[in-house]
Amino acid sequence: MSSLLHDRPASTPAMLAVFGDAALLRAALLFEAVLAEAQVTEGLIPLEVGEAIVAACVELPDVEDLAEAAAHAGTLAIPLVQILRQRVAARHGDAVAALVHKGATSQDLADTALVLQAKAGAALIRDEAARLAQVLAALAETHAATPMLGRTLLQAALPITFGLKVAGWLQGVDEALMRFDIEAATALRLQFGGATGSLAGLDGKALAIAERLAARLDLALPAKPWHAQRGAIAGLASALAILIGAVGKIATDIALLAQTEVAEAFEPKVAGRGGSSTMGHKRNPTGCQVALSAALRAPHLAATLLSALPQEHERGLGGWQIEGPVLADLFQLAHGALAVMAPVIEGLEIDVERMAANLAAAGLGNDTGESEALVARALDAYRKDR
Amino acid sequence: MSSLLHDRPASTPAMLAVFGDAALLRAALLFEAVLAEAQVTEGLIPLEVGEAIVAACVELPDVEDLAEAAAHAGTLAIPLVQILRQRVAARHGDAVAALVHKGATSQDLADTALVLQAKAGAALIRDEAARLAQVLAALAETHAATPMLGRTLLQAALPITFGLKVAGWLQGVDEALMRFDIEAATALRLQFGGATGSLAGLDGKALAIAERLAARLDLALPAKPWHAQRGAIAGLASALAILIGAVGKIATDIALLAQTEVAEAFEPKVAGRGGSSTMGHKRNPTGCQVALSAALRAPHLAATLLSALPQEHERGLGGWQIEGPVLADLFQLAHGALAVMAPVIEGLEIDVERMAANLAAAGLGNDTGESEALVARALDAYRKDR
Amino acid sequence: MSSLLHDRPASTPAMLAVFGDAALLRAALLFEAVLAEAQVTEGLIPLEVGEAIVAACVELPDVEDLAEAAAHAGTLAIPLVQILRQRVAARHGDAVAALVHKGATSQDLADTALVLQAKAGAALIRDEAARLAQVLAALAETHAATPMLGRTLLQAALPITFGLKVAGWLQGVDEALMRFDIEAATALRLQFGGATGSLAGLDGKALAIAERLAARLDLALPAKPWHAQRGAIAGLASALAILIGAVGKIATDIALLAQTEVAEAFEPKVAGRGGSSTMGHKRNPTGCQVALSAALRAPHLAATLLSALPQEHERGLGGWQIEGPVLADLFQLAHGALAVMAPVIEGLEIDVERMAANLAAAGLGNDTGESEALVARALDAYRKDR
Amino acid sequence: MSSLLHDRPASTPAMLAVFGDAALLRAALLFEAVLAEAQVTEGLIPLEVGEAIVAACVELPDVEDLAEAAAHAGTLAIPLVQILRQRVAARHGDAVAALVHKGATSQDLADTALVLQAKAGAALIRDEAARLAQVLAALAETHAATPMLGRTLLQAALPITFGLKVAGWLQGVDEALMRFDIEAATALRLQFGGATGSLAGLDGKALAIAERLAARLDLALPAKPWHAQRGAIAGLASALAILIGAVGKIATDIALLAQTEVAEAFEPKVAGRGGSSTMGHKRNPTGCQVALSAALRAPHLAATLLSALPQEHERGLGGWQIEGPVLADLFQLAHGALAVMAPVIEGLEIDVERMAANLAAAGLGNDTGESEALVARALDAYRKDR
Repeated sequence: MSSLLHDRPASTPAMLAVFGDAALLRAALLFEAVLAEAQVTEGLIPLEVGEAIVAACVELPDVEDLAEAAAHAGTLAIPLVQILRQRVAARHGDAVAALVHKGATSQDLADTALVLQAKAGAALIRDEAARLAQVLAALAETHAATPMLGRTLLQAALPITFGLKVAGWLQGVDEALMRFDIEAATALRLQFGGATGSLAGLDGKALAIAERLAARLDLALPAKPWHAQRGAIAGLASALAILIGAVGKIATDIALLAQTEVAEAFEPKVAGRGGSSTMGHKRNPTGCQVALSAALRAPHLAATLLSALPQEHERGLGGWQIEGPVLADLFQLAHGALAVMAPVIEGLEIDVERMAANLAAAGLGNDTGESEALVARALDAYRKDR
Repeated sequence: MSSLLHDRPASTPAMLAVFGDAALLRAALLFEAVLAEAQVTEGLIPLEVGEAIVAACVELPDVEDLAEAAAHAGTLAIPLVQILRQRVAARHGDAVAALVHKGATSQDLADTALVLQAKAGAALIRDEAARLAQVLAALAETHAATPMLGRTLLQAALPITFGLKVAGWLQGVDEALMRFDIEAATALRLQFGGATGSLAGLDGKALAIAERLAARLDLALPAKPWHAQRGAIAGLASALAILIGAVGKIATDIALLAQTEVAEAFEPKVAGRGGSSTMGHKRNPTGCQVALSAALRAPHLAATLLSALPQEHERGLGGWQIEGPVLADLFQLAHGALAVMAPVIEGLEIDVERMAANLAAAGLGNDTGESEALVARALDAYRKDR
Repeated sequence: MSSLLHDRPASTPAMLAVFGDAALLRAALLFEAVLAEAQVTEGLIPLEVGEAIVAACVELPDVEDLAEAAAHAGTLAIPLVQILRQRVAARHGDAVAALVHKGATSQDLADTALVLQAKAGAALIRDEAARLAQVLAALAETHAATPMLGRTLLQAALPITFGLKVAGWLQGVDEALMRFDIEAATALRLQFGGATGSLAGLDGKALAIAERLAARLDLALPAKPWHAQRGAIAGLASALAILIGAVGKIATDIALLAQTEVAEAFEPKVAGRGGSSTMGHKRNPTGCQVALSAALRAPHLAATLLSALPQEHERGLGGWQIEGPVLADLFQLAHGALAVMAPVIEGLEIDVERMAANLAAAGLGNDTGESEALVARALDAYRKDR
Repeated sequence: MSSLLHDRPASTPAMLAVFGDAALLRAALLFEAVLAEAQVTEGLIPLEVGEAIVAACVELPDVEDLAEAAAHAGTLAIPLVQILRQRVAARHGDAVAALVHKGATSQDLADTALVLQAKAGAALIRDEAARLAQVLAALAETHAATPMLGRTLLQAALPITFGLKVAGWLQGVDEALMRFDIEAATALRLQFGGATGSLAGLDGKALAIAERLAARLDLALPAKPWHAQRGAIAGLASALAILIGAVGKIATDIALLAQTEVAEAFEPKVAGRGGSSTMGHKRNPTGCQVALSAALRAPHLAATLLSALPQEHERGLGGWQIEGPVLADLFQLAHGALAVMAPVIEGLEIDVERMAANLAAAGLGNDTGESEALVARALDAYRKDR
């Protein structure tokens, strides 16, 4: 928690920002503003009230004060709505101020804000994963016929081509990205249900407002609120963990290939990267390290959200409150791993001669079987998926 | 491991059988038999050799001996193939026997057998989850307008209808089942790659053989072998864990509603069920217990397979070997939870008057908002999904 | 669950038996017999009743029938006590039969039986871990001065001695075994509290009976029942997971050293072990595989019991019921990993010349620093701990 | 990661500070300063060099720049040591600057800094856990004879006293705190081993320096460096998770007792706490929520460190790098849960009459068995432990 020295090396500035405090507050304020607009359109509140609320949603409150107040209140929504009401009340009086957040509940605010952050995060994930897949596809194609030693159970087995190995990496990333897209299509949806998810207190216009909110925020509109149905969040988390695992698989292989005695592939040389505080000769697989760290943490983060699934009644106690920070960690680790491995693949130094030498030394012949045909099939599948 | 007293109460005889030793051996022998058939068709082995191999695949070997031999060898495939070769050799000689398992590798056998078990398991899961969804839909419809107290953070909140609560349960199960179907469509695929996944040693007929195997076993044919790309297995595991979580959510709510002081809903009375070894008056929520136990274990089992994703090179050491038992546990817990909760919902005793009384006692009015409309929308969504 | 083909390769026959059905039933029947004896001594039941109960506890009931009955009843205790009462009633009538299990609750029976199994399991763990530590100590001593390449982040770093590496393995196992001993001293304790842990219904003699039970079963006597306080179980589970992790660390290193291109150490040659179903030349690190598989699964099993800690009121619903199978898995994996790695270390083939050659090839000098002194210190610490 | 709005409600300002960036840098700089002092004392570097290094360790570097540099380099140690060397070089030249960090490795710096943070964190944990135990003991004593309904499997069982329930909570916290103390005694130890843990490059004075470092930093001195033996870290993490679980158990019970229909105990009224953004009447169990959230997350965090145990060779790739942030999360969640529940217990509103009424309504008599004697035994055990 809250250590840039820990967080930055594991992620990217872009994704740290997407799940940072300012972005969370912007998303929360956007929800309140758009809610007011929709209620104006549906005739639930007067235009000038709507405008007053929208105006109150512009300036971000002080994060430290708000964090303290949220800790005290037990939820961020209470002090945040209170601030908005104070702002509105200052110019329009308490009666108008009471219309802020009308018909919504804390979880509507919190969940929709989280989903908006996840939507921004998903765009970053998709870009970086697509980039990684693209460079993997190019690398697989280039080395479709480059012979190397296949290794099973960490022992020399029979020949493959390096392209076949890379095609496997591509297969992993591509399939994981498709799963992520499917999960995102479900999970990136509006939360709007009011106190107990019954859409009470909105004069029969609640569904119309929900439709407007979803359209305006570019989120899916679920059949009903999902305050205590968290499968979609857990599904998104699992998809991120599997994507991280696919990147971790690549990192595992590269770190093994880069071992001093194997020496078949290396992360690109970058000045000041991968060194040692004591050993000048070292060239550590620093990108792999980031991806492997993510792959160690992600399963447990995804499992945290799986553990939180059986939430009590109409809103859980303890379970739903953890989803924000845990999902943020997963997005941040995923983007960190992707962003570090894409350039590793782009600049991967491959020692084709050493591959040949290690293969020859193992004395297992040169038959790479159908490696090339399989690379072609994998590339076809990848191109069809995109 | 290996305790019927532990396993039976957590699962069903049907699913225990699907992942039992006999079923595993039948699946493994089917793979070898079908492989021989395909190689006959492709002209790689003579018809009589194929028939000899198929004949050798009929009788199941002794499980205890084989378990011991597998523990010694490090993989089940080695002693199993050895037994088949001995059987063939006894009648046809060593040269013919050597053609058993031709072109395949241990992992082809193990993975395809696991997938065949998962396929049988998926059919059971689908049936039971569909049944649960169906009874939930009926219950939601019946009680679409039955008022009750909505509860958030384990405190009285505002009114809902019982139908709305059940519609939430349905939403959870239905979405989880759709995810499971998607994951199964990917994961239930052939594994066939030979020693290092290069399809070597099959005279250029490997892809044709793979196509025949997939068709004959009714499995999808992947673009390339997935020996070290395990995302689909992890995806299936996650989907099972989310499904279990959706059932666990139902169990959480029912156990809370059945509390002595709440007394709004109860598991059906079944002679000899839910009693106590000391307290004759007790009526324990025994079905909920099974589902909640599953919901506690499943996240960690799914995470185990996520942790195993970064497997080394062309076949992992330690990672892939755990998938069989862990995936079996997940299928078994999922079926246990589903099979126990479907009759709980079917026979659920609902005390509508107590619901009304608890609601009145809370003094929070009677406005159930758009509950009925939301139930209708949820039922529409469910029917569209089916 | 319930697959010998999965379970045997991951564990040992001895530990599978300790947590098998027969052992569970023997432990449960022992509890009931000893309870009757203690109640005779304290004058709560007549001698002949006690003898009748003890006699009824001799023969093990049919496991399949009992598993089915336990699944139906929701707990093993109910049908098991029923069987005992039927046995007693057949010869002594219903009034006498009602005294079976007097003052005890299902969880007293289940927890004490589990603890008795854990006690037997702990003895096996201790023996095998002590054996592993011993062979590690001998190996460290032998190679205290054998130079080899130290490797950090999977890259050549600076020289160490092989003894220093092994001393690290020893440190891990030794510290883990000490933790296990401490946790076992707490966790191996009697459970006896009656229906709600209040020791009601025993005429003020409950504490005296508890003392007799603890003494007779050679278990610690806790200050109060721990029906809903499960920290000791979770502590024991964590200690097992850490022990498995220490063995997994050894397996990681040996598997890496055994790589074809490194070739510094190998598992001992054992006929029929570590082969491949397709590649005759292979010598897979099969022992390492078992230990690594255990090290992948154990963290999630330990976490399962951590997740189960917040149990409801006087006895949890869903949480405590999972402890038996999960703790069994941990003991079985731990013993499997230990039992497989002890002979690997004993018979480890070490290529000292290759170590020297790899070190020389790296060109990083020969300064092994204080390696020898550190080995001596580690051996001293180990010997002091024993 | 890095969201105060997420982190503050889950923890305390004090513990967030202990694991914040400034504290991490202070600990790291302290290590370098103390190292220089020890090397002066042992005659490895001149006094004026030592003074120059110590002087360079006073001012904290800019966190954002350093985080960026650490992300680039792959470890915090490299840019941090570089900054110190630049500072020294500016006044004393490059030759003197090269003596900064002499004989140490990145992991010596990182691990010792983490341990120093953990030491400060452990003091906070101990204080807060001791305070919680104390108020629990007082509460148990006060209500040793207050009758209430015992509940098992979420159903009315037989009477207990409220003091017996609280004595159980105390038992859980007290045992968990003892475990934490034991683990801390092992884990709070110096890391000092140099590049590969061989203590090379220090002219035979490495052990003497290590002794001085340990004494000066008030840390235990291990028999040998533990760069790749991480059991003690995992043990500390497990102990924290068990402690959190013990607090989560209390929160579970209080949240259940505070249910509208049960109404036996409530968190203290605090202005502005536990409210709802829509429902003025609500009094949410906000403290319980914090503890339950922690209890959901902690098992997975502890498991993360268990998963990281099998680290490669002399320093792991990916595994050890995750320990800092994950251990920080655990300390922060533990302190958050403890700090929120201690005042909940202190101010707990107990409705003794409602307890009696619920008990009477259940019609299960008044026999609370040996509850009082068990409370006395539990208090004795607690007092003996302190």
